[in-house]
Amino acid sequence: MSNNWIKHANAGVAELMPYQPGKPVEELERELGISDIVKLASNENPLGLSPKAAQAIENACSELTRYPDANGFYLKQKLSEKLGCDDNQLTLGNGSNEVLEILFRTFVGEGGEVIFDAHAFIVYQLLTQSCGATAVKTPSTDWGHDLDAMLAAITDKTKLICIANPNNPTGTFIDGESLKAFIDKVPSHILVVLDEAYDEYLSAEQRSRGVAWLKQYPNLCVSRTFSKAYGLAGLRVGYLVASTEITDLLNRVREPFNCNSLALAGAEAVLSDEEYLAKGIELNNREMARFEAYFGERNIPYIPSVANFITIEVGQAGDFYQKLLKKGVIVRPIAGYGMPSHLRVSIGLESENSRFMQAFDEILAE
Amino acid sequence: MSNNWIKHANAGVAELMPYQPGKPVEELERELGISDIVKLASNENPLGLSPKAAQAIENACSELTRYPDANGFYLKQKLSEKLGCDDNQLTLGNGSNEVLEILFRTFVGEGGEVIFDAHAFIVYQLLTQSCGATAVKTPSTDWGHDLDAMLAAITDKTKLICIANPNNPTGTFIDGESLKAFIDKVPSHILVVLDEAYDEYLSAEQRSRGVAWLKQYPNLCVSRTFSKAYGLAGLRVGYLVASTEITDLLNRVREPFNCNSLALAGAEAVLSDEEYLAKGIELNNREMARFEAYFGERNIPYIPSVANFITIEVGQAGDFYQKLLKKGVIVRPIAGYGMPSHLRVSIGLESENSRFMQAFDEILAE
Repeated sequence: MSNNWIKHANAGVAELMPYQPGKPVEELERELGISDIVKLASNENPLGLSPKAAQAIENACSELTRYPDANGFYLKQKLSEKLGCDDNQLTLGNGSNEVLEILFRTFVGEGGEVIFDAHAFIVYQLLTQSCGATAVKTPSTDWGHDLDAMLAAITDKTKLICIANPNNPTGTFIDGESLKAFIDKVPSHILVVLDEAYDEYLSAEQRSRGVAWLKQYPNLCVSRTFSKAYGLAGLRVGYLVASTEITDLLNRVREPFNCNSLALAGAEAVLSDEEYLAKGIELNNREMARFEAYFGERNIPYIPSVANFITIEVGQAGDFYQKLLKKGVIVRPIAGYGMPSHLRVSIGLESENSRFMQAFDEILAE
Repeated sequence: MSNNWIKHANAGVAELMPYQPGKPVEELERELGISDIVKLASNENPLGLSPKAAQAIENACSELTRYPDANGFYLKQKLSEKLGCDDNQLTLGNGSNEVLEILFRTFVGEGGEVIFDAHAFIVYQLLTQSCGATAVKTPSTDWGHDLDAMLAAITDKTKLICIANPNNPTGTFIDGESLKAFIDKVPSHILVVLDEAYDEYLSAEQRSRGVAWLKQYPNLCVSRTFSKAYGLAGLRVGYLVASTEITDLLNRVREPFNCNSLALAGAEAVLSDEEYLAKGIELNNREMARFEAYFGERNIPYIPSVANFITIEVGQAGDFYQKLLKKGVIVRPIAGYGMPSHLRVSIGLESENSRFMQAFDEILAE
């Protein structure tokens, strides 16, 4: 008794394919009947939860029958202080995925075009389609964004340009000078969003100046997340920094209680946990160097990465992924990003990475 | 340095006014410098968190650096068992607000019309506008939905009809027979969503048969929430039950990790806490009777309610609201629902309700 609802759906919905998340550990456990599985598939923080966040979550549980603070007052206060912006330049979301979704829903519609790199974060593609707009993908240079190609792709229909910096799943990076020169050339009625989900992993010199640039570029937006270096992927908190004018519009579209009470409490607390952040970054740098040496010694091509993952070229990546799975190691195939020969490996704990290396060596020896 | 971004925003965004939540307790505490404030403003469960949910949340904290289960496998399994439907008929959301948002974003666009009652839940209005569609509001009869008026409002542009049953903020109810007769008359290409956020408060005879009707009406959708009787407003979990065909489309538009890990864990656990549910409903019935007697004795007109709140007519409701605030009692003014003479009072604990009654008596005596 089908009504053929796909015919009645909005433009773009029919072609949408749901996002494919990394395979959950427990799913593989069920399939293989083994228990010591290592998941290096979702660029998660391997350290476990920040103790400060854990305490804040516990404290917030007593008020869970109440609706969350619809405006995230305390989290915004803390963020604005840290970022050097005003509270009313902040839009909070259920992960940076949702703040991007709100941005798209506010400014991108049927007939509009959105420009992004051919190997950029796949959510840009999904959001563009779900708004009924057209994705304009520019080719990469050495797996990184080609900013000149992006400028050349601008038309009078362009609504938004998405720049992932660092980019996922390639780990590539655009330096501040090049980025600023690029934004200078974008017409000021076209929005540019810098998606900086991995910014905390950059060195002090590399860290983004995007928030400071907002004063100069009213068409600029910067998104960040608590899911990576801050280790709160399970809580879903992200934010977007923009002009007060843009932020006002975004908050009209945002549903009122989009961040739940425990998410707000955990994110606020982890912002004060500098020790946790530093420990994770130190671990990441150390283990990234170990991965580079490991792949270098074996002549496995990898894309140099500034983030918390490394993407390698292994030929038939789908087969390689399956072989790793059978050995209890989950990484991420990225054929959906137009990279069927590559696998993305998240940087885990030293012991987890060693498990990966052992399994990888065994497969190479087969 | 304004770019007049409102000009660049999608249709409807300019006219959107953000949702006004109930005044938070801590905000009033700051303003008045008092601490024993009673909040009867957001139809929250006054009992405090279910112990089973609390335990599940604590257990789930150890995995918070991992992304949530993108498909809510265990929660859906439990829900489908309870509801007598398939897992693939369920869409989970960040509150029922988000599942409604997903439904609108999938099927409602510019040029479309959405029909709802003039005094229905205000989120229908906000979502209609944010999709660039036209709201068609039908007048109420005795503050309840006029189903004949809704049928008469159908045009060839109608995409969706929203029925809140029970309705918020009026507490009115449509019996199953009338509702079924109504759905029978709606053309089968027009979606009907039954928003049953307060269904758990109904008597056994009144409880919705909406999920069972899905087999018969492929254009029917039913939304529910964990924010009211299940006492998880702070966690944000709601769900929509529909045909597998509609559900497939909704899950393409849904962002993958929209319910966070603690929300999934808490909701799954509270579904097993029948004792908590029963205790809340018993309290609500008892205190509702007390409120009715209280207002009856004072000749304060009230709208008979089957939910966990009661809406009263007090003349200049804005003034009355302010007077209650000064006495540390927060209720909800509903002028935004076209009801400037009414106040909505949530049913609290016996002691909270007594505080309200005392404050109310003092104001009447002034």
